[in-house]
Amino acid sequence: MRNVESQFLAWLKSRLPAHPQVVLGPGDDAALLRLAGGGCLVTVDVLSDGVDFQLDRVDPRRAGRKCLAVNLSDIAAMAARPVAAAIGLVLPRQGALDLAIALYEGLLPLAEKYGVAIAGGDVNTWDGPLAVSVTVLGEPTTRGPLCRGGAQVGDEVLVTGALGGSILGHHLDFEPRVSEALLLHERYVLHAGMDISDGLTLDLSRLAAESGKGAAIRPEDVPIAPAAEAWARQLADGSTPLEHALADGEDFELLFTAPPDEARRLLADQPLRGPHGVSITAIGQVLSEPGLWQLDRHGQRRPLSPRGFEHREVGVQPSG
Amino acid sequence: MRNVESQFLAWLKSRLPAHPQVVLGPGDDAALLRLAGGGCLVTVDVLSDGVDFQLDRVDPRRAGRKCLAVNLSDIAAMAARPVAAAIGLVLPRQGALDLAIALYEGLLPLAEKYGVAIAGGDVNTWDGPLAVSVTVLGEPTTRGPLCRGGAQVGDEVLVTGALGGSILGHHLDFEPRVSEALLLHERYVLHAGMDISDGLTLDLSRLAAESGKGAAIRPEDVPIAPAAEAWARQLADGSTPLEHALADGEDFELLFTAPPDEARRLLADQPLRGPHGVSITAIGQVLSEPGLWQLDRHGQRRPLSPRGFEHREVGVQPSG
Repeated sequence: MRNVESQFLAWLKSRLPAHPQVVLGPGDDAALLRLAGGGCLVTVDVLSDGVDFQLDRVDPRRAGRKCLAVNLSDIAAMAARPVAAAIGLVLPRQGALDLAIALYEGLLPLAEKYGVAIAGGDVNTWDGPLAVSVTVLGEPTTRGPLCRGGAQVGDEVLVTGALGGSILGHHLDFEPRVSEALLLHERYVLHAGMDISDGLTLDLSRLAAESGKGAAIRPEDVPIAPAAEAWARQLADGSTPLEHALADGEDFELLFTAPPDEARRLLADQPLRGPHGVSITAIGQVLSEPGLWQLDRHGQRRPLSPRGFEHREVGVQPSG
Repeated sequence: MRNVESQFLAWLKSRLPAHPQVVLGPGDDAALLRLAGGGCLVTVDVLSDGVDFQLDRVDPRRAGRKCLAVNLSDIAAMAARPVAAAIGLVLPRQGALDLAIALYEGLLPLAEKYGVAIAGGDVNTWDGPLAVSVTVLGEPTTRGPLCRGGAQVGDEVLVTGALGGSILGHHLDFEPRVSEALLLHERYVLHAGMDISDGLTLDLSRLAAESGKGAAIRPEDVPIAPAAEAWARQLADGSTPLEHALADGEDFELLFTAPPDEARRLLADQPLRGPHGVSITAIGQVLSEPGLWQLDRHGQRRPLSPRGFEHREVGVQPSG
């Protein structure tokens, strides 16, 4: 194991570019980062073979990329800048070094794209399948982090992109909305935000609850991804594309709220269309009544059950 | 799984005390910490069942405590203050919630003792055995972090405590040398430091190499733990207690260097004896010639092969 670890660390060091915020890189007992004064954001996710991807069907580079991307999406959800990642691998003994290198070959280009330093890498082998732990550190902008708990009654609920059917490939290859979130947070007044990882209705119900509010969705306004249509067709179980857009997990799009005037300006501007090719859609409103609701075309309100895909359990079956 | 996660997070939130440096705790997409101005130290270690402990022989509370303790030892190695931990669990499905709670029941008292906030907790279940990823963030003191690369020719090499035989139980129940390292770094001029995790000779050879120097050990001065004697007796393979002190892993004592005058003062003071009951021993010197050496009583120098226990592989067999 030490052998794998030392060989791997030698390979990794040769691949890591210098980073202006890394005072002391991997090699000591801890890395030292220089952060801006606004504090340090921390998020951790562990992804594993058979749950978040299946290595017998997916190139390990894609899997490695996903492990970093889901964590970058959490930093994007806070409209903050990612700075560094600390990555822990537990590798099956057989072919451990090759697998470690392939995982990093997938994640390093993404790290570089977003200026993320690899601040720590722990490598272990065992008799079990692959597990990858990624902790990402970020720093908030001068506007502070965008939190789940800031939604106000009357806010418009907005999403980036289109939703549903992520299971067909998007859950592996999505682009974390880091740049998009920073741009929106800089140019507009946003009240609350998160990323959609467990399904729109489940995640919106969490955002509303964290804000001490409720939320209503206008189903006909929810942007449905082509993959949601394909997935409904493929399943042929009577589920509709809209249901997949409402409940499928791992969209990794931004879900946020803004006061009505600001939302109008934002929708007219569509500031992400040019640089990012991403649309923003208003899908509902923040209410004073707790709970999740749907609004029909006449403004009639009915309860809506939050439904989220247990994406880590079943979200991987047809991918790869 | 979501069910385990949400139940577990509800339990965890009820157990987490407020922390002055946690601006935003678990529950959002990322936690926000307020750090002192000196930067942010990051270290990650993944520990797993069958490698770092064996759950069929060890109380999961002891295992959980170890998972945090080894990371606190890395922050101690930098003579820095631990601030927060982000913890990722991958749990066997059967009994997942109970196991998660037991692990935390073991680590929370240690976190509290050292003022470490739990800044993030990711919980997953799968068909594999338990893996625990712990990332600890720390902040250096105004003296900066103590690094491996600062040793100077003529420095004395010093260690805290006594070494060897950790496998008999110390590897689970050791006290990370956080307070000790902070005290030493504050009161004395130290040049380089690390913790002994892979065995004295292997770790000292790394410290020397990182400093661009060599190091010599005086074998008769190495403090031998009673457990090293017991372990040698138990093995009855001809290995000596000294060999175990030189090569066994997971002592988690401090290994550091100081200029000769400062080392003399430190050894006369023995500043850790009173508050911590820990002795400091001088065991060798930093040399200009690269490599690891041993010095006999007449000052004759012979090469010494760095030997480290592959502790993660074999270090757990007799424990529990």
